[in-house]
Amino acid sequence: MKGSVGELGEFGLIRELTSRISSAPAVRIGPGDDAAVVAAPDGRVVASTDILLEGRHFRRDWSTAYDVGRKAAAQNLADVVAMGAVPTALLLGLVVPSELPATWPVELMDGIRDECQAAGAGVAGGDVVRGETITVSITALGDLRGREAVTRSGARAGDIVAVTGWLGWSAAGYAVLSRGFRSPRAFVEAHRRPEPPYPAGPAGAALGATAMTDVSDGLIADLGHIAQASKVRIDIRSAALDVPAQMSDIGQAVGVDPLHWVLTGGEDHAIVATFPPETKLPARWRTIGEVLPARTRGPAPAPAGPAPPGVTVDGAAWDKAGGWEHFSS
Amino acid sequence: MKGSVGELGEFGLIRELTSRISSAPAVRIGPGDDAAVVAAPDGRVVASTDILLEGRHFRRDWSTAYDVGRKAAAQNLADVVAMGAVPTALLLGLVVPSELPATWPVELMDGIRDECQAAGAGVAGGDVVRGETITVSITALGDLRGREAVTRSGARAGDIVAVTGWLGWSAAGYAVLSRGFRSPRAFVEAHRRPEPPYPAGPAGAALGATAMTDVSDGLIADLGHIAQASKVRIDIRSAALDVPAQMSDIGQAVGVDPLHWVLTGGEDHAIVATFPPETKLPARWRTIGEVLPARTRGPAPAPAGPAPPGVTVDGAAWDKAGGWEHFSS
Repeated sequence: MKGSVGELGEFGLIRELTSRISSAPAVRIGPGDDAAVVAAPDGRVVASTDILLEGRHFRRDWSTAYDVGRKAAAQNLADVVAMGAVPTALLLGLVVPSELPATWPVELMDGIRDECQAAGAGVAGGDVVRGETITVSITALGDLRGREAVTRSGARAGDIVAVTGWLGWSAAGYAVLSRGFRSPRAFVEAHRRPEPPYPAGPAGAALGATAMTDVSDGLIADLGHIAQASKVRIDIRSAALDVPAQMSDIGQAVGVDPLHWVLTGGEDHAIVATFPPETKLPARWRTIGEVLPARTRGPAPAPAGPAPPGVTVDGAAWDKAGGWEHFSS
Repeated sequence: MKGSVGELGEFGLIRELTSRISSAPAVRIGPGDDAAVVAAPDGRVVASTDILLEGRHFRRDWSTAYDVGRKAAAQNLADVVAMGAVPTALLLGLVVPSELPATWPVELMDGIRDECQAAGAGVAGGDVVRGETITVSITALGDLRGREAVTRSGARAGDIVAVTGWLGWSAAGYAVLSRGFRSPRAFVEAHRRPEPPYPAGPAGAALGATAMTDVSDGLIADLGHIAQASKVRIDIRSAALDVPAQMSDIGQAVGVDPLHWVLTGGEDHAIVATFPPETKLPARWRTIGEVLPARTRGPAPAPAGPAPPGVTVDGAAWDKAGGWEHFSS
């Protein structure tokens, strides 16, 4: 395909994009009508929206359009999975500059489609408009298959904390890329294209997870959301975390404690959950900590007794910044 | 509330926004978790996404944040309704500049919430990020209540064409505003805040509509979508259209045939549908034309016999541009 988005025109681009989509069992009516119709056999639908901006959430010189598509879809599909649902469909809102080569949104759509397929979902519809900044807005839908949604608020003191998927890989890849390198490739790839463990969400729900989330802002930050919502403390045992030797090598090369990436790096979309202590977890779940009681009210400064809700590492506050707040920089 | 979005911070803004939301029966789990859970009692969910950009789809000097919120929500809820579904919930993706006053997104949310209430839906979740251009991405969900979705492809030769809601009001209001005037107020208001006839979608489905859409790009353009999808011709009788006297006055003042606004003006989100000829339509539906056979294939130029799918007005092509293609300007 040659030419720019502007030369192709809105309807031409929409035709190209919809022609890339493959069918999916849950998508009853796909793009081309006023709205899509998606199966929701459970009688409820799980829905999550995220917006990604060029320059802020991705860079065209670091990631191909295809990888941005996979990443944008993965991020939303992981949110659906983190409720314990099976992804069914995704809708795309896309802002593209006129002068953008038309291949870019087309390859983006290929990435979205392939990531949807990896998660068992289909592309159901979308909207494309012209604007200054490439903006990818995705809404993912999912089905709970009769189970209760696993929220962030059900963790109880005594529960174990377990994780499945990758931690810190995207952050290590970002560190490599931001210093102008393109290797080690495994970490760069992990930054460009996360691989959320999609089956883990519904599996975690079936195993009896009391709280669950995906790690998008960093393990401490995301467990912090569970701690706050559940009014508990969560302590992570650092020795239980997996720090690959190659990640340690990168850490040494760039002067960063690799544990910091594992504890605070987001975007890998690992699934972390709390389970009753007696739960027998399959091998691909790694137990990394425990849930403790928290002081839910009382005078400040802290009296003797439990600390307020929050996350500790080996019993102490992690003294480096965890996650990031997008507006504060 | 004082200060900018940047001063309030991401989490502060999200707290403010979620505090504005009222509960809705279909929203089982609202904002604050990885994803929302929305009732889909029908076993299917209708879903539609649209993106609005400042400068392209709204102007801050013409519309308040509240009106932009109502309009953005209305546009998506109308798409859901146009399938014959009852709106249940909406998700918001929002891009806001750091320096934007924090009141702006808060009032936008008030508008979205109120428009949702008017349609019977709730705000289920969203995402807020910082960026250069105010961008409002909305996904609306709906429930078909056991009826088949009414697509654009079911119109048959012999059907009648009927419309309910407003036509050309937003376009007349835009003409007024773009010439620097602020009245007549009814049209300016219609441009700032459309009032889609939400109950008309499910009602049209229950009446047996064979095809249906909302008028977002203009009557000719949107009926054109039905004509193409259904492989039929549609002829509009101009005498059957309602051109209010005050709209004629504006037309005279600005040198525009008001019929042009009624035929090509979008954004009022009237509901237009085709029905079997024997259908007894309630008074609020206005019969405006009929469905004719089309030549579905054959050599070009056109031989004797039916014309290809398309829309005519009083038997002839409307010779002014209908609707607009967003990239071509």
